[in-house]
Amino acid sequence: MTEIEIGRGKRAQRAWSFDDIAIVPNRRTRDPQDVSTSWKIDAYEFGLPVLGAPMDSVVSPETAVAIGKLGGLGVLDLEGLWTRYEDPSQQLNEIAKLPADKATKRMQEIYSEPIKPELIRDRIAQIRAAGVTVAGALSPQRAAEFSDAVIKAGVDLFVIRGTTVSAEHVSKNVEPLNLKEFIYKLDVPVIVGGAATYTSALHLMRTGAAGVLVGFGGGAASTTRRVLGIHAPMATAVADVAGARRDYMDESGGRYVQVIADGGLGTSGDIVKAIAVGADAVMLGSVLARAEEAPGQGWHWGQEAFNKDLPRGNKVQVGTAGTLEEILLGPSSSASGGTNLMGALRRSMATTGYSDVKEFQRVDVVVAPYHA
Amino acid sequence: MTEIEIGRGKRAQRAWSFDDIAIVPNRRTRDPQDVSTSWKIDAYEFGLPVLGAPMDSVVSPETAVAIGKLGGLGVLDLEGLWTRYEDPSQQLNEIAKLPADKATKRMQEIYSEPIKPELIRDRIAQIRAAGVTVAGALSPQRAAEFSDAVIKAGVDLFVIRGTTVSAEHVSKNVEPLNLKEFIYKLDVPVIVGGAATYTSALHLMRTGAAGVLVGFGGGAASTTRRVLGIHAPMATAVADVAGARRDYMDESGGRYVQVIADGGLGTSGDIVKAIAVGADAVMLGSVLARAEEAPGQGWHWGQEAFNKDLPRGNKVQVGTAGTLEEILLGPSSSASGGTNLMGALRRSMATTGYSDVKEFQRVDVVVAPYHA
Amino acid sequence: MTEIEIGRGKRAQRAWSFDDIAIVPNRRTRDPQDVSTSWKIDAYEFGLPVLGAPMDSVVSPETAVAIGKLGGLGVLDLEGLWTRYEDPSQQLNEIAKLPADKATKRMQEIYSEPIKPELIRDRIAQIRAAGVTVAGALSPQRAAEFSDAVIKAGVDLFVIRGTTVSAEHVSKNVEPLNLKEFIYKLDVPVIVGGAATYTSALHLMRTGAAGVLVGFGGGAASTTRRVLGIHAPMATAVADVAGARRDYMDESGGRYVQVIADGGLGTSGDIVKAIAVGADAVMLGSVLARAEEAPGQGWHWGQEAFNKDLPRGNKVQVGTAGTLEEILLGPSSSASGGTNLMGALRRSMATTGYSDVKEFQRVDVVVAPYHA
Amino acid sequence: MTEIEIGRGKRAQRAWSFDDIAIVPNRRTRDPQDVSTSWKIDAYEFGLPVLGAPMDSVVSPETAVAIGKLGGLGVLDLEGLWTRYEDPSQQLNEIAKLPADKATKRMQEIYSEPIKPELIRDRIAQIRAAGVTVAGALSPQRAAEFSDAVIKAGVDLFVIRGTTVSAEHVSKNVEPLNLKEFIYKLDVPVIVGGAATYTSALHLMRTGAAGVLVGFGGGAASTTRRVLGIHAPMATAVADVAGARRDYMDESGGRYVQVIADGGLGTSGDIVKAIAVGADAVMLGSVLARAEEAPGQGWHWGQEAFNKDLPRGNKVQVGTAGTLEEILLGPSSSASGGTNLMGALRRSMATTGYSDVKEFQRVDVVVAPYHA
Repeated sequence: MTEIEIGRGKRAQRAWSFDDIAIVPNRRTRDPQDVSTSWKIDAYEFGLPVLGAPMDSVVSPETAVAIGKLGGLGVLDLEGLWTRYEDPSQQLNEIAKLPADKATKRMQEIYSEPIKPELIRDRIAQIRAAGVTVAGALSPQRAAEFSDAVIKAGVDLFVIRGTTVSAEHVSKNVEPLNLKEFIYKLDVPVIVGGAATYTSALHLMRTGAAGVLVGFGGGAASTTRRVLGIHAPMATAVADVAGARRDYMDESGGRYVQVIADGGLGTSGDIVKAIAVGADAVMLGSVLARAEEAPGQGWHWGQEAFNKDLPRGNKVQVGTAGTLEEILLGPSSSASGGTNLMGALRRSMATTGYSDVKEFQRVDVVVAPYHA
Repeated sequence: MTEIEIGRGKRAQRAWSFDDIAIVPNRRTRDPQDVSTSWKIDAYEFGLPVLGAPMDSVVSPETAVAIGKLGGLGVLDLEGLWTRYEDPSQQLNEIAKLPADKATKRMQEIYSEPIKPELIRDRIAQIRAAGVTVAGALSPQRAAEFSDAVIKAGVDLFVIRGTTVSAEHVSKNVEPLNLKEFIYKLDVPVIVGGAATYTSALHLMRTGAAGVLVGFGGGAASTTRRVLGIHAPMATAVADVAGARRDYMDESGGRYVQVIADGGLGTSGDIVKAIAVGADAVMLGSVLARAEEAPGQGWHWGQEAFNKDLPRGNKVQVGTAGTLEEILLGPSSSASGGTNLMGALRRSMATTGYSDVKEFQRVDVVVAPYHA
Repeated sequence: MTEIEIGRGKRAQRAWSFDDIAIVPNRRTRDPQDVSTSWKIDAYEFGLPVLGAPMDSVVSPETAVAIGKLGGLGVLDLEGLWTRYEDPSQQLNEIAKLPADKATKRMQEIYSEPIKPELIRDRIAQIRAAGVTVAGALSPQRAAEFSDAVIKAGVDLFVIRGTTVSAEHVSKNVEPLNLKEFIYKLDVPVIVGGAATYTSALHLMRTGAAGVLVGFGGGAASTTRRVLGIHAPMATAVADVAGARRDYMDESGGRYVQVIADGGLGTSGDIVKAIAVGADAVMLGSVLARAEEAPGQGWHWGQEAFNKDLPRGNKVQVGTAGTLEEILLGPSSSASGGTNLMGALRRSMATTGYSDVKEFQRVDVVVAPYHA
Repeated sequence: MTEIEIGRGKRAQRAWSFDDIAIVPNRRTRDPQDVSTSWKIDAYEFGLPVLGAPMDSVVSPETAVAIGKLGGLGVLDLEGLWTRYEDPSQQLNEIAKLPADKATKRMQEIYSEPIKPELIRDRIAQIRAAGVTVAGALSPQRAAEFSDAVIKAGVDLFVIRGTTVSAEHVSKNVEPLNLKEFIYKLDVPVIVGGAATYTSALHLMRTGAAGVLVGFGGGAASTTRRVLGIHAPMATAVADVAGARRDYMDESGGRYVQVIADGGLGTSGDIVKAIAVGADAVMLGSVLARAEEAPGQGWHWGQEAFNKDLPRGNKVQVGTAGTLEEILLGPSSSASGGTNLMGALRRSMATTGYSDVKEFQRVDVVVAPYHA
């Protein structure tokens, strides 16, 4: 790994974003229809390597079902509006209309309503009833408190998602979540993250997680870099975590942990690149928030946007690009990389001669930064 | 070759675009009038190392003749409007007037009209009658179906052009084109591409092609990088393929395959740089679409713009810069690099002391990215 | 250290700005409330590692007191309006209203009013009376002339600040300040700078200074790079000076000199990065000029803006972001990195698992330039 | 020298512009008034290391005198308007008012008026009468034809300036200028260029030139890179030619050839950097065209703008920054780097502790590209 000297007292690695790289076709080509985009985690198989991000602008119980029927996995945020309000449509309408200068303050209020275990139960039941795989997400801070309610309600996959989740959280005041014990006791496979480096991902893999989310608040609605100085360029983060997957597979005698890119995925080209540098699947936020069915109604925001003391993101307007089906499966009548995401993945794999997602992780890439 | 580590699981090459490099004058200078821009492929000689791209906005039967009379080679797209419609002027007029938000959908319809072998025959006859070298292009998917019609109609040069063409296409459903056999059976020299890497170009050379097109949808009207994540920065692509030309010449005992840059050539400066890094000739799209005679009427589009499922380009407005003659040979009364392209090439060769195109491939270049 | 060849006659180091780098979370995380931001210089302890810059748009006697009460250290410019005018409010009002094209000329006039020793005495007394630590700044040119007045007035910390301050100033006309003697004779600890390189900082440390300011006119209001060609990218400057601190500690047998980043700190993210590459504390200008209490009334300027012969900065509009308390300690209701600076520092330290400022200097950083 | 591989068939050097580098202060500082900016070429001494570029928008007989009286050297273009028209004020007025879309064509006409030897004689006499050093410029194409007239008229310094001037020009049609013989026969010292590389400069030095101009049409009004693909980033070009000066001094047994940066000098900061990487003096175009006295009346253009076949530059509006004296010597009441150029040079030298121009060529620089 190339080390750069910032100055006499400090060295650093060079890190790369998706915009810095591109895929290059090589010797062989293939028909797009001969390409498989299927993905499997634990016992669950999916036609598409796509998770809908647990964000209120993206996944409602209804869109969780819709994403599932299209072949992906919609993950419901169990600390969002749907578990705080019996019927959150009024809050969603209000948020969509909030002017920029008042949005943060008002959203801080709306999200101060307590989470209700019985709503967790009902929302999960609603998704399960539709016959799709069920997944719900909690933050590490809330995982212990609500996990019983979640498990009883019967999720297939459990997601623990925070801006940074480490296997070793230190606290003087509260008993921190022991991830390893927690995961061991649960009956269902757990996806956990975000992690952004080789070491942090390796430790998360050792907790027994079935999948690791790669990212650190790098999404379209985040200002983490500006506020905290923290930034994990995604191409490097995914490739580093893929390296951890390989090394962990060796040390564990063959356990394969799914690497799921989560953040910085604004176009079909970004999704293709995430897999090209080692991801097994992608968790999508802003691109799915552009669906006609999306609860955000053309707006997108993350949990960091309504943090009480230190908001680190904004409600951003993403507009509407088409139906969920058009966005995921096409057909597309626009050339902007926001629709027929999976058609683009298929064609990119075909053009470079690969036939499944795992194989495509070996495709050649070049470093060629955009001059926007 | 310098390898960069994207992360622990992935390495990549650095790739460079024309905007990243520049030519530097050195010891000797020369008079522009003492410089030759002639180019030869197989038995055909040209005063200019210029091919008009087989795109409906650039080459009509009329402009194919005009380009030929000026010293270049106009390549007609045999799957475009001229072989689908008896008189495509109505369709061209309609396309020129389509508003941006409806263009993709309507062009998908216009191009659904079937290709007619008898129109292939007539268009080629029309060009041949004018006494210029005749060249027509098919995609690899259509090459087998229409090649008989093309050969019978009597082309001098046959162009097989797709976004990526490989010597080894894999398909479960259809019998893919065996390029080597196909080229062997044809009576005429074949130019084939695009290829963007050393390996893919070397394999295309081994099929017996007389020329290889270098590029991958990198033109002015393309959004391939955004949609597919695929991008082949042209300076590196051309230099890599030129490396393949040299190695293939050695392995074949002296067969010299023409390297033709195809894409990313927006100014005379880009054309000069393409040759400087190893191209023998250039295939021009958008710069020729700016001719008064161009069928696009100030607009430019590629075949990927009307793909049914996954359009990867837009109809873009390029405006009008002058007559075909002013664009290729001058004189120029503008300093923007869009007119007198060959005058600029001559002057650049003269300023650096080179007297022909082949020699000019040795000129010194520097890496000095634009800060747009 | 990597050397780059500019050309055959010249070599150069690569230097990095805060925008070029980012912090990456690693294995461990921590609760923000378990993190300490305390800072100590000589016998003086502070809750926050923050100094208000001695600039008339930032520190008045009143804001010096307010910054002190919030846990930081406000440094009054003893050559500014408060020591030239009995009541400078009229001048401040006028400056706030000056149109851009007349500002430089009029400010040159306003600042030609002589400095009055008795005003130095009164301003310092006013700050001292409020019970906070007292610090005043002079330029090296004026340090000898006014130091007696300053010491008699009773400062706790003495700041000598210029665009570049060296331990060895050469002059044919005036007896230059011998920093080593000057510091030795003073009773109070001295902070001196700006310095931007390892060598210049090492020499300043040898003069006996308690702290070194790192920077060279890199602030928001400066055009030094454009006018003088001089620029010291801050990440490299801080890391180099931190290297000098380590080496000087060794050669001096254990004297630890405080490294204070001064310039280029426009967001909380920049502050976090300054510490990450080695700073013990930060001197803030433009971000504090955005306080409701700031004397600049939404405008910000440095001393170089009214230089008589060669102004090298402008009066710039920075607007108002909140109260001094909201800016330093929050809560924040905006995600732009301009409020709750210390909350952001805490969270960044917690997210990466560090518990105090000194420890946080070891955090991992990556090179990942912004694509604005 | 670091070589970069563009691709398998091509390698390139990295080249740097002034915007890519900056000067860093180091250990020592000095008073600006103790700094000398004097410059000497052959027997001629100047207070300022500044030449006014032979361009009609910059140097008229009157401004040549004015620049001389301020301490620099104004070089009159002997192929410009002043030697084509008895009184060119009408043409200058017309050019100033030409709209952008018609400027190139009309300027091509205005400059088709023949050059008159008697006007060469009169203009030079006019400058000489004012008592300043006299310098006139011809292109290499015209040098032989008009040199007699020039020498008879009595210039002190003879400038041969073209976009690229090589010691070995090859032509089949005309007898090219043998620079070595030509310079040998002349009685006066010759400055020749532009050259942009080590080798081309070394060969020019061997012709006996007293000074070499470094550059290649890189000025504010040029589009050479876009049109010809040729570009010589100035920091690398100056450093390379400074390397040639050192090597030539060795091979010639001590002849020191003046290196004069010519192009890309848009601010005082750029001038400072040119000297920092090895220039002995600078030839200024656009910054002097901004003088109230400048013949361009707020506009600026080069000879390449009215080339008959291939114009490679535009008439650009530069506005007016102050009198020639304010621009060169100050005082300045703006912080944009366009006035008091020499005050900025003095201060930059003082801040880094150097006392004369030759010494300042050793100052430390860093690579730190602007993120405009």
